[in-house]
Amino acid sequence: MAGLLAWWERLCASSKVIRFVDVNLRGIGQVMFQDNPLSGLLFFVAIGWGSFAAGVPQVAIGGLVGVLVATLTAQWLRVEQAALHAGLYGFNAYLIGLALPTFMAATPALWVYVVFGSAVSVVATLAMTNVFKTWNVSALTAPFVLVTWLLLLATNAFSGLQGSALPPSGEIVPIDPAAADPLRVVDFVSGILTSISQVFLKGSGVAAVLLLAGLAANSRAAAVFALVGAVVAVITAHLLGAESQLVTAGLLGFNPVLTAIALGAVFYRPSVRVVAYTLVATVLSVIVQGTMIAALTPFGIPTLTAAFVLVTWLFLLPAQKFD
Amino acid sequence: MAGLLAWWERLCASSKVIRFVDVNLRGIGQVMFQDNPLSGLLFFVAIGWGSFAAGVPQVAIGGLVGVLVATLTAQWLRVEQAALHAGLYGFNAYLIGLALPTFMAATPALWVYVVFGSAVSVVATLAMTNVFKTWNVSALTAPFVLVTWLLLLATNAFSGLQGSALPPSGEIVPIDPAAADPLRVVDFVSGILTSISQVFLKGSGVAAVLLLAGLAANSRAAAVFALVGAVVAVITAHLLGAESQLVTAGLLGFNPVLTAIALGAVFYRPSVRVVAYTLVATVLSVIVQGTMIAALTPFGIPTLTAAFVLVTWLFLLPAQKFD
Amino acid sequence: MAGLLAWWERLCASSKVIRFVDVNLRGIGQVMFQDNPLSGLLFFVAIGWGSFAAGVPQVAIGGLVGVLVATLTAQWLRVEQAALHAGLYGFNAYLIGLALPTFMAATPALWVYVVFGSAVSVVATLAMTNVFKTWNVSALTAPFVLVTWLLLLATNAFSGLQGSALPPSGEIVPIDPAAADPLRVVDFVSGILTSISQVFLKGSGVAAVLLLAGLAANSRAAAVFALVGAVVAVITAHLLGAESQLVTAGLLGFNPVLTAIALGAVFYRPSVRVVAYTLVATVLSVIVQGTMIAALTPFGIPTLTAAFVLVTWLFLLPAQKFD
Repeated sequence: MAGLLAWWERLCASSKVIRFVDVNLRGIGQVMFQDNPLSGLLFFVAIGWGSFAAGVPQVAIGGLVGVLVATLTAQWLRVEQAALHAGLYGFNAYLIGLALPTFMAATPALWVYVVFGSAVSVVATLAMTNVFKTWNVSALTAPFVLVTWLLLLATNAFSGLQGSALPPSGEIVPIDPAAADPLRVVDFVSGILTSISQVFLKGSGVAAVLLLAGLAANSRAAAVFALVGAVVAVITAHLLGAESQLVTAGLLGFNPVLTAIALGAVFYRPSVRVVAYTLVATVLSVIVQGTMIAALTPFGIPTLTAAFVLVTWLFLLPAQKFD
Repeated sequence: MAGLLAWWERLCASSKVIRFVDVNLRGIGQVMFQDNPLSGLLFFVAIGWGSFAAGVPQVAIGGLVGVLVATLTAQWLRVEQAALHAGLYGFNAYLIGLALPTFMAATPALWVYVVFGSAVSVVATLAMTNVFKTWNVSALTAPFVLVTWLLLLATNAFSGLQGSALPPSGEIVPIDPAAADPLRVVDFVSGILTSISQVFLKGSGVAAVLLLAGLAANSRAAAVFALVGAVVAVITAHLLGAESQLVTAGLLGFNPVLTAIALGAVFYRPSVRVVAYTLVATVLSVIVQGTMIAALTPFGIPTLTAAFVLVTWLFLLPAQKFD
Repeated sequence: MAGLLAWWERLCASSKVIRFVDVNLRGIGQVMFQDNPLSGLLFFVAIGWGSFAAGVPQVAIGGLVGVLVATLTAQWLRVEQAALHAGLYGFNAYLIGLALPTFMAATPALWVYVVFGSAVSVVATLAMTNVFKTWNVSALTAPFVLVTWLLLLATNAFSGLQGSALPPSGEIVPIDPAAADPLRVVDFVSGILTSISQVFLKGSGVAAVLLLAGLAANSRAAAVFALVGAVVAVITAHLLGAESQLVTAGLLGFNPVLTAIALGAVFYRPSVRVVAYTLVATVLSVIVQGTMIAALTPFGIPTLTAAFVLVTWLFLLPAQKFD
């Protein structure tokens, strides 16, 4: 693996085009914190599969357009090279490119919106990175959440933009206990896999396996924490009495998966104390995902990765030293 | 009093158990900014009385569980000793422990929730303290407000968590002028007392007197500002035409009481100019409590001390020098 | 012009009364970033005209009361002289003084509210300026937006305060495509002019011309960017399918106008790259104004200049160096 990456790095150094490909693959890899083109490639294939299998190729294409536009925008804005090459200006736009076609009708206006939103995401990334470096904390996927919420909410005000697949705006109603019926084993396994693939807004077991492979290609710890995060999320959600359909679809698990990777394998070095700290944050991410579903009901917009961002900030800002 | 506290401090220094009791009492005292175990004890008795008298012992017990869990969590996280001993990691959890049983059904899941929320409150306190020290300002009770809102909103998504006493989610409707009928003298006095006790989520005259005693035990200025804050709040709310029932129940006064103590007796040194500044902030806290009641109507969650936190931040952040 | 201003500055230096007038005029000028008493005077006349012509003199009077109270409050709080003399403590209160009478019934309580809110706006300005100077960014009109939202939302809780002209609270409903019918040329021109005058909450062509004159008196670049911002906003809003009535009334254009002036002519030096950057931000301000209309529907409060503040922060925080 090390030899392969060294060979690829020589290729990148020799060609601007290959470097450009590399930056975009790393941008996709950074959705799950992996600064590795092979991880990015596996993630890209996973989402391509999930997207075409579900009959919505525009989602995978949107992601590709998003990351390409973001890289070009970052170059135009002359951002710092090291961060650019690590893919740090691409992952928010990749997610925007997946999210907008997921919740909007596939009209020509959608594509203008994807390009525009991806360009803006670079500015938002620069802005939030600047604010949060005050406390030595990453902006995470907050630029994706902010820009996507702004763009999706705006569809209500413009008839040229159709948020066809947005949840309706309404009053918050506690869930019907009958909807929280026992999960069968097959649902349980399905919930774990879709919790991982929903990080990229897709509910697909095949995609989940490819995503785990992409994680393992760069960091086994990340793959383990993703899987453990998904298991913890599904169990917690079910014990708390969440709607079974949401659990099975992975919609209560993708935020905890990201929290588990971020705290367990990226921003802290794994240890017993770190695992305990990460576990609390992972469970909290399940609860806060429930919070977000309720809090956004009046607005009729999806929760995206807001729960992950909020909880991970909360657990990074104390600047704990676990060594 | 000084002799008593010196004797107690010797006891604490001699025994880890007594130090642990001391830290928890100070944690309760810090709800109203008093770093004094006797204040904490009087507050604890006040809330115990109010809670048992109202037939909801789980509220007082919840508070106790909250502060104990928070102290243990803070020790596990190896927080700075001086802040820990001053009770600064306990007061948010004490309030969470009062709030969750106030708005949720007393099921076994509630107690898991209280323990979990109290542990998380320490992380939230560390995070917010780190952010706000950038401007040399305290996090106040913001960790309590944030964690409680997150946990209460989530009850809508999980059938195992029952937010039975939460206000319903709905549209904002201006109050009926008929509901703002004249206050009688007895209501006026009641409103002043309950404004003080509602700081701890209880409407009880006896509790209010004990709370004032607890304040006076450590700081006469704090007791005076609490009382004046309550009087100003009741008069302001009534003049503005608030719903009489809310005024009498102290629900428009507890935020102004906290603002008055914080600005008048804790963060600035009393002077004519400081009193004027505090008075404006106290009146604003009444108005902003009205704002919060409206703003949270779509979400169906209680205002807690959000108005106090917002207004006090607004009046601390200018870093005014009044000397 | 330079001679006129030099003569006026000598007058100000010779008399405290004239200095006071000067500070208040500059305060009005700063609504559109112009530290110039002549700009302020022209803006004042423009709003006076728009207000009396529309039969709501209380709006112009409210603005005057607001800026006067703010200047006196700032003096009482002993703020830094340079910022005070530049009018930086006046513009938020001037806008509060225009906004409250626009959305509330003209009762005696309104005037107490205007005075109170204007005084509080100075504290909010000090607080926010202190926070945002951490990243070397201005607080813009955020104090106006925050204080006005707090005060307007509170009208729901107090029968003595009547938010008669507030939009109703309700669910978010996507606009009817039929409402986005083609704009005629006369509507197009109207929309451009009212986009400029709505910065001061007035839809008036005469006011818009006076405002442009006021801008040009201090900065031709500012006048050009205001006009271009308005044109871009009207075209963008129409292409996106906004409600024609809102476009014609300038309600989708005043935020982009402010964004265009701020980024194009105030905080960055004009250049090709800056123009491109400003153009993206201007278009985003149109979209985010749509976002704000939707997001505030559950709360029943107006958007004010929130879209401008949010987008301009987003585009200032990266601290881009375009030279």
